[in-house]
Amino acid sequence: MKYAYLGPSGTFTESALLQVDGAHESERVPAANVNVALSMVREGDVDAAVVPIENSVEGGVSATLDSIATGDSLQIVAEILVPITFVLAAREGITELGQIRQVSTHGHAWAQCRLWAEANIPAAVFAPAASTAAGALGLQDPEQHHDAAICSPLVAQERGLNVLVRGVEDNVGAVTRFILVTRPGKIPAPTGVDKSTLIIPLAEDRPGALMGILEHFTARGVNLSRIESRPTGEGLGKYFFSVDIEGHIAEERVAAAVSGLHRLCPSLRFLGSYPAVQGESPLIEEHNSNDAFIQARSFVDSLRARL
Amino acid sequence: MKYAYLGPSGTFTESALLQVDGAHESERVPAANVNVALSMVREGDVDAAVVPIENSVEGGVSATLDSIATGDSLQIVAEILVPITFVLAAREGITELGQIRQVSTHGHAWAQCRLWAEANIPAAVFAPAASTAAGALGLQDPEQHHDAAICSPLVAQERGLNVLVRGVEDNVGAVTRFILVTRPGKIPAPTGVDKSTLIIPLAEDRPGALMGILEHFTARGVNLSRIESRPTGEGLGKYFFSVDIEGHIAEERVAAAVSGLHRLCPSLRFLGSYPAVQGESPLIEEHNSNDAFIQARSFVDSLRARL
Amino acid sequence: MKYAYLGPSGTFTESALLQVDGAHESERVPAANVNVALSMVREGDVDAAVVPIENSVEGGVSATLDSIATGDSLQIVAEILVPITFVLAAREGITELGQIRQVSTHGHAWAQCRLWAEANIPAAVFAPAASTAAGALGLQDPEQHHDAAICSPLVAQERGLNVLVRGVEDNVGAVTRFILVTRPGKIPAPTGVDKSTLIIPLAEDRPGALMGILEHFTARGVNLSRIESRPTGEGLGKYFFSVDIEGHIAEERVAAAVSGLHRLCPSLRFLGSYPAVQGESPLIEEHNSNDAFIQARSFVDSLRARL
Amino acid sequence: MKYAYLGPSGTFTESALLQVDGAHESERVPAANVNVALSMVREGDVDAAVVPIENSVEGGVSATLDSIATGDSLQIVAEILVPITFVLAAREGITELGQIRQVSTHGHAWAQCRLWAEANIPAAVFAPAASTAAGALGLQDPEQHHDAAICSPLVAQERGLNVLVRGVEDNVGAVTRFILVTRPGKIPAPTGVDKSTLIIPLAEDRPGALMGILEHFTARGVNLSRIESRPTGEGLGKYFFSVDIEGHIAEERVAAAVSGLHRLCPSLRFLGSYPAVQGESPLIEEHNSNDAFIQARSFVDSLRARL
Repeated sequence: MKYAYLGPSGTFTESALLQVDGAHESERVPAANVNVALSMVREGDVDAAVVPIENSVEGGVSATLDSIATGDSLQIVAEILVPITFVLAAREGITELGQIRQVSTHGHAWAQCRLWAEANIPAAVFAPAASTAAGALGLQDPEQHHDAAICSPLVAQERGLNVLVRGVEDNVGAVTRFILVTRPGKIPAPTGVDKSTLIIPLAEDRPGALMGILEHFTARGVNLSRIESRPTGEGLGKYFFSVDIEGHIAEERVAAAVSGLHRLCPSLRFLGSYPAVQGESPLIEEHNSNDAFIQARSFVDSLRARL
Repeated sequence: MKYAYLGPSGTFTESALLQVDGAHESERVPAANVNVALSMVREGDVDAAVVPIENSVEGGVSATLDSIATGDSLQIVAEILVPITFVLAAREGITELGQIRQVSTHGHAWAQCRLWAEANIPAAVFAPAASTAAGALGLQDPEQHHDAAICSPLVAQERGLNVLVRGVEDNVGAVTRFILVTRPGKIPAPTGVDKSTLIIPLAEDRPGALMGILEHFTARGVNLSRIESRPTGEGLGKYFFSVDIEGHIAEERVAAAVSGLHRLCPSLRFLGSYPAVQGESPLIEEHNSNDAFIQARSFVDSLRARL
Repeated sequence: MKYAYLGPSGTFTESALLQVDGAHESERVPAANVNVALSMVREGDVDAAVVPIENSVEGGVSATLDSIATGDSLQIVAEILVPITFVLAAREGITELGQIRQVSTHGHAWAQCRLWAEANIPAAVFAPAASTAAGALGLQDPEQHHDAAICSPLVAQERGLNVLVRGVEDNVGAVTRFILVTRPGKIPAPTGVDKSTLIIPLAEDRPGALMGILEHFTARGVNLSRIESRPTGEGLGKYFFSVDIEGHIAEERVAAAVSGLHRLCPSLRFLGSYPAVQGESPLIEEHNSNDAFIQARSFVDSLRARL
Repeated sequence: MKYAYLGPSGTFTESALLQVDGAHESERVPAANVNVALSMVREGDVDAAVVPIENSVEGGVSATLDSIATGDSLQIVAEILVPITFVLAAREGITELGQIRQVSTHGHAWAQCRLWAEANIPAAVFAPAASTAAGALGLQDPEQHHDAAICSPLVAQERGLNVLVRGVEDNVGAVTRFILVTRPGKIPAPTGVDKSTLIIPLAEDRPGALMGILEHFTARGVNLSRIESRPTGEGLGKYFFSVDIEGHIAEERVAAAVSGLHRLCPSLRFLGSYPAVQGESPLIEEHNSNDAFIQARSFVDSLRARL
């Protein structure tokens, strides 16, 4: 197996990938951005890619949401959760926070540590980096000027950086959710606690259009665990929705909801059903059970046999 | 063919039966009440029965609604509309309204002519009869005491009665809807303008229980043309619904609505799909078209093929 | 106080009236039919009237539903439940069921005892009477021919009739619900377990029209305890709904539902809020509590104060 | 008047501010980030601030969505649309695209020009800047290493930069929407084409929770023009919604929707009603008109006067 991931080496995305069974022994290819990682999958250069989709503090990762919503179809086969904690690493020779005048990291990381920085290194200016790892590696580059970097514990350890403070994130307990993406193929078997991901264009702009979509889920007792609206790029007010639901396409109620949605939005994209890392089996009302659906179909079939 | 109908001969129900193709040449058996007529069908004594189900002024016919809702399953294969107009026939020798002191007819007919009676024969007392025809025939029976009867034009003509006034009904234009009932069998082919009849028990007594039922129709753009609540007999507040919808079980949207309802109310009773006498083809939105359902099913099938 | 009731004396309606506080000492006027009883209220001939509205076996009483839905406004101030049990009384001299060839009663009573009659007096012909009391009194009239009558225990006792069998009703435990009707005036104070009655015309004939009505109740957690569709008389498929809801107009959630409905159906008729005889306090979710409504109004008022 | 805006000078946000009446003559204070700009408003350092809220390609601006959703209340009093078009400016001496090895800009701008860059300057490495203006100004700083910057036409013109290519954005026609934010105060009068912005916490995590929110809008015919889910920071799956609706709190239907929502989510935040820059008067159904609401309230008031 050969995997792409949002690089460079030492990012949280590589931490996520390393949770995948067999990834340690597999070839791991860092990609410059999410689009590149997913293109490598689409074109068959790798078997799968790991990319971030959502952070519990920063929200959805637009690049991923947009990239899997268009272009050649892809499939999500797993989700991976990585707790997000940051360290402040400094250039060699710096031993006190007061010495730091410039700190570099990725914009998203900066957003997650800003309150800590304002309180503890108020004089430091932020220098944006292409990734947390890039900012960290820059500390070993004499041509770069920043005194410190905010980065993952992984990269600090791998590169033997000078860590001044651990846990500099503002929201303790933050988590990033990553997805493992392949070309469309066999859907992982249901485990009882599963998710499915859908891309749903909003066909009409009128009161109730979104409700018309949601009621296909509600009517079958299917819960949403994530909903993001994303612009289609065709102008303000034109959206599509990226949605995670609790359940597997192998379940009748999920199949019925997807079928109902397809009537409303034939350009609906189904991105896969896969095991949920957290959560418990959804409570399914009797009338939304597999049995209820099967018996109902059988009832209607018996009627239509009389046609 | 042998038909039962709500008798006696000369009622509006016989007029309805005579609209059925071939009924003139068939054996026609009057039944004492709706239950008897339907029992004759259930037990195979006749091939079919005609009974009233609804009047545009008086509303639903409880005996019919209740009788087809329980017991051995039956099937509605046609509906028949009969305009309801009444005549006032008098005993031989009576020539003026002022001579009438007692008038006999069925309670339902009396209800439909009461205003006329109050205005035109205010001194007349109402003597209830088992049917309009029975009241009419009683005019030729010296043992009975009523001076006049309110009855159908048919019986007055057949029996050569002394008709004083025609059109004594209060609501000009009233119509009674009759149904042709058989044992369950082949469902009539769709014509494009069809109805289906359902008996739906209300499983739960909570806000929204009825809405939960109705939204299975609304969600598929299926219109209701009639809804009646009837007591189950198990106490105040315990109901079932008798419902006519516009559409045929051969249509995907109707099949889907019935299937959805079956999950909620597995003891649902489907009484048939049959041509509607009035009305036009329902306007079906693209997402409720047969094609939309078929393509949605095909889409979901293609996903589940990957399981 | 002077009360009208659906007569004659000895009917179940008089039993209902006698449950009203002070009715024993008041003047009680029997009316020939429901319309007459309600007209006496409208025209000020009596202070109030008691009429039946619903039977747990036979369903809604059309005459009452229609009569309170049109004409000058009326108000329901109380409901009264009367258990329905029938006796078979016979003409003097008759001592055995086998002697009975003709039995008289009101059509509704006959419907409720038909199975008993078919099993126990199969040879007896049904002679409809204008009321159960009329049939009973006829037993003492030598000019009438029926051998037995099915009537209320009250009339049998009052008239000293020859009762052969008690409890001849098919559905043991049947109950009829009566209403006490006045001209519009002070609404009875809420008791915690109340009902309100509404007449709602169905403005449009389209999928979801009834749902549009019901969701005004559901959205505020207001339960329906009765719903009847009645024809408007303008043709098949033209209905109004007669609805009982659990709650009192003094409650915010009920006031909000009625207000919402009024927007949809400005010709809505509110027939009153009154204590429910049965049932318990409805479970009201926090967001439908009086407090929630009052705070929400106050919140919006504070915003609009900034206009 | 004194305004803050997301700086530095020359950004699209300053272009937006310059559209505000009187802004040319007012003091304009650049802020380092959205949080700082809004804090200046909250603390009274400025009268108002202009910040971006949404881009037609990149979607919602998380920093703004989150910052106005928490902390001291703010008010949106206007929206401003700015067409987004980028230029490629190069360091002095560079005259051909082939000479560019490093290009700097803000990450959002990079995302909007990436396809152009891949096609036209494939060899160039991306160096993130804190803002498009910062990247542009860096071209005049000999200590910085990038050869080119992607920036607004405004800053290129103001600084006399060496523009190689205009219109390097991938999506021609992209628009960013900015908001003018003040402390809570007088709400701008309705113009007939207005918007209101709400922050709605999702109280419950169950099927239909979002639908329960949306139906308060749908039930009153209120259209949504924007919906964004944002994490509350309390863990994956915990969201609030940032919503723009078409209408003004002065309208009855909007007031009713906000009131209904407040019952469900008492911690709802109302961020203001203000003129919409685009769009037309919403089509309001009769039953959602001001008149319908006023007459409904008057009807219910007349009933409750009888209590």
